[in-house]
Amino acid sequence: RTLIVELFCCSLQGILERLDAGEIVIGDGGFVFALEKRGYVKAGPWTPEATVEHPEAVRQLHREFLRAGSNVLQTFTFYASEDKLENRGNYVAEKISCQKVNEAACDIAREVANEGDALVAGGVSQTPSYLSCKDKSEVKAAFRKQLEVFMKKNVDFLIAEYFEHVEEAVWAVEVLKESGKPVAATMCIGPEGDMHGVTPGQCAVQLVKAGASIVGINCHFDPDTCLETVKLMKEGLQAAKLKAHLMSQPLAFHTPDCGKQGFIDLPEFPFALEPRIVTRWDIQKYARKAYDLGIRFIGGCCGFEPYHIRAIAEELAPERGFLPEASEKHGSWGDNLSMHTKPWVRARARKEYWENLKPASGRPYCPAMSKPDGWGVTKGARELMQQKEATTEQQLKELFQKQKF
Amino acid sequence: RTLIVELFCCSLQGILERLDAGEIVIGDGGFVFALEKRGYVKAGPWTPEATVEHPEAVRQLHREFLRAGSNVLQTFTFYASEDKLENRGNYVAEKISCQKVNEAACDIAREVANEGDALVAGGVSQTPSYLSCKDKSEVKAAFRKQLEVFMKKNVDFLIAEYFEHVEEAVWAVEVLKESGKPVAATMCIGPEGDMHGVTPGQCAVQLVKAGASIVGINCHFDPDTCLETVKLMKEGLQAAKLKAHLMSQPLAFHTPDCGKQGFIDLPEFPFALEPRIVTRWDIQKYARKAYDLGIRFIGGCCGFEPYHIRAIAEELAPERGFLPEASEKHGSWGDNLSMHTKPWVRARARKEYWENLKPASGRPYCPAMSKPDGWGVTKGARELMQQKEATTEQQLKELFQKQKF
Amino acid sequence: RTLIVELFCCSLQGILERLDAGEIVIGDGGFVFALEKRGYVKAGPWTPEATVEHPEAVRQLHREFLRAGSNVLQTFTFYASEDKLENRGNYVAEKISCQKVNEAACDIAREVANEGDALVAGGVSQTPSYLSCKDKSEVKAAFRKQLEVFMKKNVDFLIAEYFEHVEEAVWAVEVLKESGKPVAATMCIGPEGDMHGVTPGQCAVQLVKAGASIVGINCHFDPDTCLETVKLMKEGLQAAKLKAHLMSQPLAFHTPDCGKQGFIDLPEFPFALEPRIVTRWDIQKYARKAYDLGIRFIGGCCGFEPYHIRAIAEELAPERGFLPEASEKHGSWGDNLSMHTKPWVRARARKEYWENLKPASGRPYCPAMSKPDGWGVTKGARELMQQKEATTEQQLKELFQKQKF
Amino acid sequence: RTLIVELFCCSLQGILERLDAGEIVIGDGGFVFALEKRGYVKAGPWTPEATVEHPEAVRQLHREFLRAGSNVLQTFTFYASEDKLENRGNYVAEKISCQKVNEAACDIAREVANEGDALVAGGVSQTPSYLSCKDKSEVKAAFRKQLEVFMKKNVDFLIAEYFEHVEEAVWAVEVLKESGKPVAATMCIGPEGDMHGVTPGQCAVQLVKAGASIVGINCHFDPDTCLETVKLMKEGLQAAKLKAHLMSQPLAFHTPDCGKQGFIDLPEFPFALEPRIVTRWDIQKYARKAYDLGIRFIGGCCGFEPYHIRAIAEELAPERGFLPEASEKHGSWGDNLSMHTKPWVRARARKEYWENLKPASGRPYCPAMSKPDGWGVTKGARELMQQKEATTEQQLKELFQKQKF
Repeated sequence: RTLIVELFCCSLQGILERLDAGEIVIGDGGFVFALEKRGYVKAGPWTPEATVEHPEAVRQLHREFLRAGSNVLQTFTFYASEDKLENRGNYVAEKISCQKVNEAACDIAREVANEGDALVAGGVSQTPSYLSCKDKSEVKAAFRKQLEVFMKKNVDFLIAEYFEHVEEAVWAVEVLKESGKPVAATMCIGPEGDMHGVTPGQCAVQLVKAGASIVGINCHFDPDTCLETVKLMKEGLQAAKLKAHLMSQPLAFHTPDCGKQGFIDLPEFPFALEPRIVTRWDIQKYARKAYDLGIRFIGGCCGFEPYHIRAIAEELAPERGFLPEASEKHGSWGDNLSMHTKPWVRARARKEYWENLKPASGRPYCPAMSKPDGWGVTKGARELMQQKEATTEQQLKELFQKQKF
Repeated sequence: RTLIVELFCCSLQGILERLDAGEIVIGDGGFVFALEKRGYVKAGPWTPEATVEHPEAVRQLHREFLRAGSNVLQTFTFYASEDKLENRGNYVAEKISCQKVNEAACDIAREVANEGDALVAGGVSQTPSYLSCKDKSEVKAAFRKQLEVFMKKNVDFLIAEYFEHVEEAVWAVEVLKESGKPVAATMCIGPEGDMHGVTPGQCAVQLVKAGASIVGINCHFDPDTCLETVKLMKEGLQAAKLKAHLMSQPLAFHTPDCGKQGFIDLPEFPFALEPRIVTRWDIQKYARKAYDLGIRFIGGCCGFEPYHIRAIAEELAPERGFLPEASEKHGSWGDNLSMHTKPWVRARARKEYWENLKPASGRPYCPAMSKPDGWGVTKGARELMQQKEATTEQQLKELFQKQKF
Repeated sequence: RTLIVELFCCSLQGILERLDAGEIVIGDGGFVFALEKRGYVKAGPWTPEATVEHPEAVRQLHREFLRAGSNVLQTFTFYASEDKLENRGNYVAEKISCQKVNEAACDIAREVANEGDALVAGGVSQTPSYLSCKDKSEVKAAFRKQLEVFMKKNVDFLIAEYFEHVEEAVWAVEVLKESGKPVAATMCIGPEGDMHGVTPGQCAVQLVKAGASIVGINCHFDPDTCLETVKLMKEGLQAAKLKAHLMSQPLAFHTPDCGKQGFIDLPEFPFALEPRIVTRWDIQKYARKAYDLGIRFIGGCCGFEPYHIRAIAEELAPERGFLPEASEKHGSWGDNLSMHTKPWVRARARKEYWENLKPASGRPYCPAMSKPDGWGVTKGARELMQQKEATTEQQLKELFQKQKF
Repeated sequence: RTLIVELFCCSLQGILERLDAGEIVIGDGGFVFALEKRGYVKAGPWTPEATVEHPEAVRQLHREFLRAGSNVLQTFTFYASEDKLENRGNYVAEKISCQKVNEAACDIAREVANEGDALVAGGVSQTPSYLSCKDKSEVKAAFRKQLEVFMKKNVDFLIAEYFEHVEEAVWAVEVLKESGKPVAATMCIGPEGDMHGVTPGQCAVQLVKAGASIVGINCHFDPDTCLETVKLMKEGLQAAKLKAHLMSQPLAFHTPDCGKQGFIDLPEFPFALEPRIVTRWDIQKYARKAYDLGIRFIGGCCGFEPYHIRAIAEELAPERGFLPEASEKHGSWGDNLSMHTKPWVRARARKEYWENLKPASGRPYCPAMSKPDGWGVTKGARELMQQKEATTEQQLKELFQKQKF
């Protein structure tokens, strides 16, 4: 390997300067899933009170992503809008205010960012207010409350992410733009578009018109599906003669069997997704494909662990000219196996091996794909569903489970 | 849920007092795999210099296991014998001495153990000296060097783990017994026994005769296989009218397709094991089965993350009377999904759902099982292998790959 | 079961009278695959000289389909055009003339049809002349030669089937229409359309305009894909305000992983398709779905054995009012297991059991899906391909094999 | 290919002369499964009244096996004992006597055998009388009744097959030996032995002592398991210093997941076994392995179609010096694809391709293996089972379904 390892290239530039200059910017991975497995986040609510309760755990995860190559550290403020925290929160809201959670998130991210060359991005996401049909001003107020903290803590730029409805995403971008800072916006949709049927291309156009400088996709789908959707966004922008940088932060789970609403509907969500976790080699393919598609802000979402981020940095090291710090503890394409005592393990120390391997699941009683719940919901099922009676859930399940093979 | 959460029951007793009193002791999970994914350990060498290089990362992982319910924190001294560190080590040995690695490991473990109710166990494992046929005194010297640190740092008890040859394991136990502290010994073998064909029952007998108070299995195989092997050990001890406590610390990977030497030979080892990762529900079944088999020291090895350890603690909470701290961020059998907005996700908030789910891999182009490399090696292949010529590896691979279906 | 078994309803009417009256007409199954397994047809050429060489084997297969419920017996004249027989034929052409093969096929089909209530359909299929770019008159001459035999033997109607190019299918229909007999036309295409990109809807329109009274799909894809394509044809006809009866004769193999040219490109074609064979229960679902879609000529193609045809007849027995003769040897949804000595086998004697069963393959080392060869062929590959050099095939293979997961 | 095709080598010798001379004798395939799919046998009863009802169908199947290479045509008298026919039989017994079924079976087999070089073997199988605990004389009487027909029709030798209990098999051999004709005996057991726990080795010894000249295994398990069991029989005979010829006639279904009673207990039995059907290439491996094990009577049972028998004959053609008649319609290892128009299909015309292919199932929602029903039946379940109450079946099912992964 002849790459020169320059661990910290001191660009000290903002996100748009970097992207405008053609730099590849590497995002970070998924906090809620990683910290759930580490014992600090509760699945279901998925709220980030850990920033106050266990800052050392949040700090350590940021640090791992930084070492793995992340150029952007997102504040751990996912689902940290006031309405969400209250909603979820007998065990949270009284004790820990929305403001404290957001402030702590900014402080921790900045502390770690300063250990390297990373930017801090303040993030907002989909709100319960919107989903329960509150009006525009109320939803915007929720975003604005978070934005106030981000401004006080002077984050480097802003991300509106994880929106299923472009309307709400546009509102978020409009609020964030009030700050004067650069705004990125990603939706958690697939090629079929948002929940009201707005296509990815149209979503991208609306987001850019609202002020986003960077648009793309995060969460809900696997890397391949995600890239397919970003491609549709790119084409939409081209057709509308608009310019924006592209961004992708997919799941680190294989989801070829997802329906329109992504992995939430898979029967394995959220506690049995293990067999779907992507390998580092899957990520190297993703990084290359994303790069070839013109995406320059490349990161991950739920399921992305530090080693997945490192795989992006390693795949794109030839273009970037350096490896991340954590590559000190990694060999390119398994070359650290070349000294193994067993010849057949030594034989795995090469790119062709890992690139072509089809990994077995060790689960001969399990299938390869699942039928998503709630997929192909019939009208009758929808009606039952709207009645929201506990007793009809079993009926619903039966209606939904249409098996094809 | 009516369990009373007493986070720190102050037993302050030693390992044998606890086990003799019938307590369930929960071990910790796998450091080398977890820290490899976090960017601090290099696969291949798998050495623990991170105790010196990045103590905060090691400390955080200990803390997560403690919160998840571990009663024993093992010093991160796997493969920390001097011969191993030197062997692996242009990047290590000169800079960081064996003594420093072991001392730092003890200090970090003790620091975190003091945050709760945990014991610290100093651990030794299989050595290159033995594998390269050094004599008994030389191998014992390697163990003794680590033991000196453990005595200086006053660990609570000692574990000899990850031995494929009972002869070496016996030597390790003999050395560790010199300390006067309780000794546990686990081998990384399956039901077929050690590499010289000594059965699990005979291994257990030899280890107890050498002075081990606790015997069992760690690493190399999945929970089911591991328990099958511990059961054979138990039967061997009963036949020999010997008494010892039983211990199991399996992989968190499904390995129904392993050969005698376990997961090392699987084509997916070590960089594509993701689809084999066990779920928390698999672990709850394992914990129950281990308990029913009479095992009272129940933990994990490679692949075990904090949430897997928490699953042991949750499954056995009725017997123990309390839940671990990290269960604050977890619902029993998914009950934290009971408030989800989608009725079909709410319908997953129950034990029957997760217990019976057969999780899909999302990988329709991958098989369920693999043929281990090196399995069924023919005599001709062995001869080629002994010649150790780089050019014969491909030949070897071809000879080995006998495909049945 | 209260259905009255009227084995032979004596309609004695032509195909169009039946369909116009709303009758369900059941086609027959696949001759080339069934007779290949029985030892009378050679895979590769797939030519039907068995009509002359082993008429008893052809007769027996016709009889089995008749007993299973077929209302139409197709003459075994697939690939029996003169150019195809010559092409394939050092072992055939000199000995057995095209005319003899076609005449014998008509005689055998009529003999068996007379044992029941079936119609005889003379069939023509895609020609090598077209594929090697012979002109329209030459291609039409090949069809006309077969048509002369069909007229001499007075078949009941005619089928042009297995066309990948709508242009050739139209020529075939034009020739067959010269006879004055009803003409059905089916193409072996999927939802993506014919090999020149003509959509299924447009294909249907062209075929009806050329004179076909019945249009649809046969071969190349599984029942689900086939029905999807027929649906597109139906929509195309509706948009063009044209009327025609619909027909489907799919594969009896699961092919969710096929590319545009169907199962030919699957790596398992033609000698390892066994794990893809559909069950009788899959066929019952297919028959119901085809019926609901408005298709009234429902049969099968390659892989369809007599028991598959019987499954169509059994599923649609409520609509038709009778069961086929072979149902004497079959129980509805497994009810013939109700007397089994083992209670768990008796428990299988019900519809819910078979309808919901996900059958295992018993092949844990095999994947669920394959990447078709030749799929996503790059321009470079196409060029290599056109050079048709033997030595480039390996290169081609390597280019083609793009693996996604 | 340089093999000389001598279609009919006129040995005209008896079964023992052939085997004693070291000849390879090829058996035939499975009648009940093949004729069930063709519409002439009812699953559940599985009785062979088709010999009287539809002799042409039985004759045709015999002929296909003969053409495929069978040297032995077994009379289609499986389950043709009087007690079985009566048992199954409101629709049979009155109309068709046991004697007529057996006589017709002999006549048809002889007629076809005379078309080639095959021997006719009269066959008896497990009886309901034994299973319902009738005494020895009664069971023997049932066999004797069939034997009288075989003697009258002068079959060439006799086969006692499909016995789960060695006691009954021994009784059958004793009766058949009364004829003075050579007797073969095969049991439908796996490596765990018969239903009373008699090992395969002990079974073989008892059968040879009772007078069998040929012993082995048929039905219930896949080729690999079957050969493993025959191997145990061989070792049992060697240990007892007994001599006998070995025979194997396994299923043509993959059954790695079977319990002690074989494929009956698999949830897919008998109507969804399709994805388990073995390919012709699997059979070539089986034939080679059987030959290498010293087995010289090599055939098949349920699931074996003519092309599977042909695969045995083709694999062993080098040893035998000739190919079967049906190989005229087959290419060695796919070489008949060498003229295909698509280069990637032509690339399949070679042994390496088919030998190494792992065929996909096309069923991404189905697992690789199943848990057999009735497997690991608990004592409580057995008790419930013995009460034979219809209402307890659901309970039983629930008890039985223990899922491991």
